[in-house]
Formats: sequence, C-alpha cells, structure tokens
Amino acid sequence: MFEVINTSEYARTGLLKLRHGSIQTPAFMPVGTNGTVKSLTNDDLIETGAEIILGNTYHLMLRPGDELIKELGGLNNFINWSKPILTDSGGFQVWSLGDLVKITEEGVSFKSPYDGRNIFIRPEDSIQIQQNLDSDIIMVFDECTNYPATHEEAKSSMELSMRWAKRCKDFHTSDGKLFGIVQGGMYKDLRSSSLEKLNDIGFDGIAIGGLSVGESKEEKTEILEHLAPELPQNLPHYLMGVGKPEDIVEGVRYGIDMFDCVIPTRNARNGQLFTSEGVVNIRNAEHKKSTLPIDPNCKCKVCKNYSRAYLNHLDRTNEILGSMLSSYHNIFYYQSLMQDIRDSIKNNKFANFVKDFYNMRDLEMPKGPV
Amino acid sequence: MFEVINTSEYARTGLLKLRHGSIQTPAFMPVGTNGTVKSLTNDDLIETGAEIILGNTYHLMLRPGDELIKELGGLNNFINWSKPILTDSGGFQVWSLGDLVKITEEGVSFKSPYDGRNIFIRPEDSIQIQQNLDSDIIMVFDECTNYPATHEEAKSSMELSMRWAKRCKDFHTSDGKLFGIVQGGMYKDLRSSSLEKLNDIGFDGIAIGGLSVGESKEEKTEILEHLAPELPQNLPHYLMGVGKPEDIVEGVRYGIDMFDCVIPTRNARNGQLFTSEGVVNIRNAEHKKSTLPIDPNCKCKVCKNYSRAYLNHLDRTNEILGSMLSSYHNIFYYQSLMQDIRDSIKNNKFANFVKDFYNMRDLEMPKGPV
Repeated sequence: MFEVINTSEYARTGLLKLRHGSIQTPAFMPVGTNGTVKSLTNDDLIETGAEIILGNTYHLMLRPGDELIKELGGLNNFINWSKPILTDSGGFQVWSLGDLVKITEEGVSFKSPYDGRNIFIRPEDSIQIQQNLDSDIIMVFDECTNYPATHEEAKSSMELSMRWAKRCKDFHTSDGKLFGIVQGGMYKDLRSSSLEKLNDIGFDGIAIGGLSVGESKEEKTEILEHLAPELPQNLPHYLMGVGKPEDIVEGVRYGIDMFDCVIPTRNARNGQLFTSEGVVNIRNAEHKKSTLPIDPNCKCKVCKNYSRAYLNHLDRTNEILGSMLSSYHNIFYYQSLMQDIRDSIKNNKFANFVKDFYNMRDLEMPKGPV
Repeated sequence: MFEVINTSEYARTGLLKLRHGSIQTPAFMPVGTNGTVKSLTNDDLIETGAEIILGNTYHLMLRPGDELIKELGGLNNFINWSKPILTDSGGFQVWSLGDLVKITEEGVSFKSPYDGRNIFIRPEDSIQIQQNLDSDIIMVFDECTNYPATHEEAKSSMELSMRWAKRCKDFHTSDGKLFGIVQGGMYKDLRSSSLEKLNDIGFDGIAIGGLSVGESKEEKTEILEHLAPELPQNLPHYLMGVGKPEDIVEGVRYGIDMFDCVIPTRNARNGQLFTSEGVVNIRNAEHKKSTLPIDPNCKCKVCKNYSRAYLNHLDRTNEILGSMLSSYHNIFYYQSLMQDIRDSIKNNKFANFVKDFYNMRDLEMPKGPV
C-alpha cells in the first residue's frame, strides 16, 4: 500500500496507494473543512497538483451530517472530488472547545454550536462517522494533550488515547486505511511508548499529533528528531496540522511524508502570499501600483495573469475574487514546494534544496539531517 | 459600427463592433463594479458566453482611482479582461447618495465614503475618467430623475441631463464609443423630447435611463412601448440596470439590444438561482437531500457536477464556493437566455420563444409586440 522510492537520510519519496488513486509523497493535503477547500474549485485544486484533500469530521458530522452524506454516496460524491480524501477524527476540534467538552473513558460529550443539542462521541462513533463519509484514510479518535502538561498528565492523556486507538482498530471495518496517532506531549519517553503501543495494535500509517499547540520550534524539532529513527520505515508518516513552508521542509528532514494545514488558504484570505523569497503582504501600500506578479518565479495562472496592484485592489475592496486568486496561488505554491522537495530527494539533491530554501528567504538553516 | 442582422417586429439581432471585439446583440453585460464580476474569474465569464462586461466609474474612480488604472494601461489591462468593457458615467451612483450630494448646473459634489474628501464631478470629468479607464463604450453623465416627480421636475432634470450630454459629446476625444441617455421620468412627451435632443447632438448608441427606480411594471412598459418606434434603427439601444429574465424578454420585444444588471450575481450570493422553470431558492430545506442539479435543462458545469444538496450545504455554511458556483450558474443562465433569444429571432421564432418562456414559468404573457 505504501512504497518508499528514494531516501536521503530520514527524508524519503514514496507512493501511497488509496482507493481513489495514488499520491506522491511527501504530500501536502489542502484542508476542506466543510467539504470545500475555501475559495477553490475542484478543478483549481487539481491544476495546482493536489492529489488528496482533508475533510473535517467534526464539521461534517454537524453540517450537513454524516448520515446525509452517506445517503448521497459518500463525501467524494457529495463534493464531486474524485481523488483521495483523508478525514481527521474530530478529536482535535472537540479538544479545541476547551471547557465546553467533557471527556471520560467512554468518550467525549459537548453541545452542538449550531442547535445546542448534546452530542456524545465514542471512538467507535468517530470511526463510524468516517466510514459514513467513506474516507480513504481514517484517523483514530484521540485526546490532544494540553500544552503545557506535567509528565503525569501527558502520560495519562496519552494512555487514554492509546486505549481509544485500540477500540478504533477493533471497530474499523471499511476498506479505508486506518492511521494511528502518536501522543505524549513534549516527553520523549511518552512519545516512544505511544509509538510502541500503536505498532503493537497495528495501523496503516502513523501520524504525529499534539504538535503546533503552543510549544516552541525547538521543542517541536526535539520530538521530531527523537521519533525519526523510531518511526516504522514501511508506513507513511503524517505530521498533523503542519504548517508553514519552513515547518514542512523541517518535517521532511525528519522523515515526514504527509502534511495538512489551513495556513495557505486562511492566510491567502488575509492577504498573506507565499513566494520563493518569503511572504508578501499584498495589503501593504507598496504594492498599490506594482505591475509585478506575486512571485516572478511562480508558474501559476495568477502570477501569469495578474499584477500585485490588482490583487491589492481586490483585497482593499474585499472582493471574493481576491480570496479566490490568492488561495489559488498559495495552494499552487505549496504543491510546487512539495514537487521540488520530491524532485530534490529523487535526484539526490535534497541537501542543496534545503540550503537554497533558507538562503532565498534570508533565514538561518536549522541544524539537522538532510 | 452597429449592424442589425435579423428583426421580428421591434426585436432584432445585431453585431456591435468595438475595439476589443464584436458583441452579438441582444446582449447581457455582467456587472463588474470594482473591476471584477463578483465571485467569477475572467475564464468563468468567457465560458458562460459573456462578450462584454460593465465597470462602475463611481467605484473605480474612488478605488483604486482612474489615474492609477490609466498608469497601469487601462481597465482591460488592470483586470486582465481582453473583451470589451462599457463603463457607466457615475451619475446613477452619485444620485443614489441622495441628500449627501449637491447638484448644480456645473456638476455634482459629494464626499468620498472612503476618506471623506470632497469630490466634484462635472460631465467633462466623467468623460475624462472613462477615457482614463479606456472604455470601449462611454456613457454620458446624467442626472437620474427622481420617482415620483412632477412634470415640471422631470422636465427640468431631463433638460439638465441634455445640456450635460452636449458637454460630454464636446469633451469626448477617445476612440471609445459614446452613448447618450434618454431621461424624462414617466412622461412620454419628455422622453420623446429627450431622444430628439440626443439625436440632434449625435451619439453612437442610445440608452434608456431612469427606469427600475420604483415605478410599476406597467409604467416601465408604457415608456418602452412609447419609445420603441422612435429609437433610431441604426444605433444600439441599451436599457440600463435591467433586470430579471422577464424584464429582459420584455425589453427585447421593444427593440432593446443591451442590458446590464447585478441581479444574477447579487441574487446568487443570496441563494436565488435562475432556472428554465423560474427561481429556485437553494436555502429552502426541501433541497437539503436533493440529488437534482439546479436546473435539469441547464448545460453549465455547475448543473453537470453538483447537486442541490451540496449547494444548500455550501450556502448554509457560508462557504465562498457557494457564491462562486451559484454566480457561475446564474450568469450562464443569463447568457444562455440571450443566446436563445438571438437564435429565436434569427430563426423567425421569437413569438414562440416568448410564449414558451412565460408558459414554462406559469406566468401570464404581457400584451405587446413579438
């Protein structure tokens, strides 16, 4: 199901075969929270090179409801997307509700923000919902450990997640792949212990959860560095909710194969555009008369056809087309970044790629493997 | 410059040759207020069959400014639209400001809603601005007569507009075509007198202004019916700011060649979708589980690919893609309507077309020429 093709220290390229097609890794998965990657059509996504998107179980179970989506032939049919879909478990969103949620051994309860009804989700329910959505990749239901947390708190939270992971595995019956999630907060021993438990249960892929929750860059790198040699080589490695372009490059250095993040689309709607030389804030007055494209090195249709002056104007007038063009460019940028990463690993030039990546942005390259 | 090709009583098909290409008439011009037809890309517009779009002088002179647009090579270049553009004169928007505007013989003064600065527009300024935008069709600066108005008020307002029309003609120097605008409120004698004055001055096209300002359907029809035999046959006739599909069909019956309106895009953003059988409100709960397309008779990519259930979901979750798909469908519907009108006139079947149009919508066909 997953084949590693080229490697460069921990970094690797691979091919992940799923029911709706194969995806090349390292891969970036645009986030389609409500069954749409915001401001983009499916044709747009395919043009950018996206081979898989993510759907949010929490949002979709509430609106329009997973049973309705099942009735209409699954999420692919409902949103008319023919390539693979990964769904998260809803655990992270429920955890984000904070005090509004009650967590027990059995599962979590919270009130729907839309109609106030009480909702109880057990790990089994999360899997059932994702099976109703008919996802290509199903994530286990987990508790995201708070940050900061004491060793005792992190251990107790991780062990609950591992018991839930086992229940998810026992319940899972669809032909979608099932991924486990490593928890354990900022404690290396807990991370190792979590990974060991997941390996014992047996999953189709290993995700790293509980990062990008407030920790420092150094703490995150320490966890990635610690886990890199322990991750099973034959399974895909997915770093959840990450990140900025530099976070992705760092992830790949530590053997990560899959990423997802709302940053390219959310930041696009706020005028933040990614380029080969860093971030352009299109709202800045300096772009008001600029005939330059967003990024002279970018081959996307927005950079071919539109000036910064026009994008600045669309942003200032709050026009939907501004969100559309900016989101397109940012997702294209992310997909091109992944393509460049894959090419450089394949051509045994990943070390150069990483060096150039930081040089072009005038950033110091963090120590680490290449 | 304008050639009438087929006729059916007052209705006619024609070809209007402009600097950026020819347009087939009767034509519908999508409105691109801020230099973008809301929620649509230029590729989308061309796919729907749009051959000309409208830009709003009032909005563009304020943001980003007509001199900036001139500096960047004109509106076509700025927004990357290669086909013709018609700009209105700004008169209607200024008039819409109501008490905030002061009108004198010389021109109008008002405060910018964006930075509060005082702005004075003379008819000559409006033409200069439109020449800066480099429009294919420039509209004279006029005063829209209030509704209701006494005969004396309407006469005085119309005569001011005619003096302004002469000043516009005298000032105009670009190779964009210049259209005059018939005013005169709901008074037939004033409308005839206005048209006569415009004919004396000499324009490339005749627009009918001051309708859809609060009058009844019957009053509007009376004015169209009255003007139809008087409009110069060799010039294009443009009914400004109109309208719903039935208003367009009625306009064509009275010899109108060009229409513009925000209804297809604005209503799309509010869930109102046009179909061959009338309006579908996609917000209605009845569509929540519907696998039907918006309009089974529509050939657009939205109707081919998406269900009412998905569009209902996108609307309920306030997703930008909902506005994008709905706007695309509505503009496609309008352009298909124009194509059907043109085909029926060409094939000498316009009378049947009008009958069927009303039958399919269960509406009574208004009396009038076909």
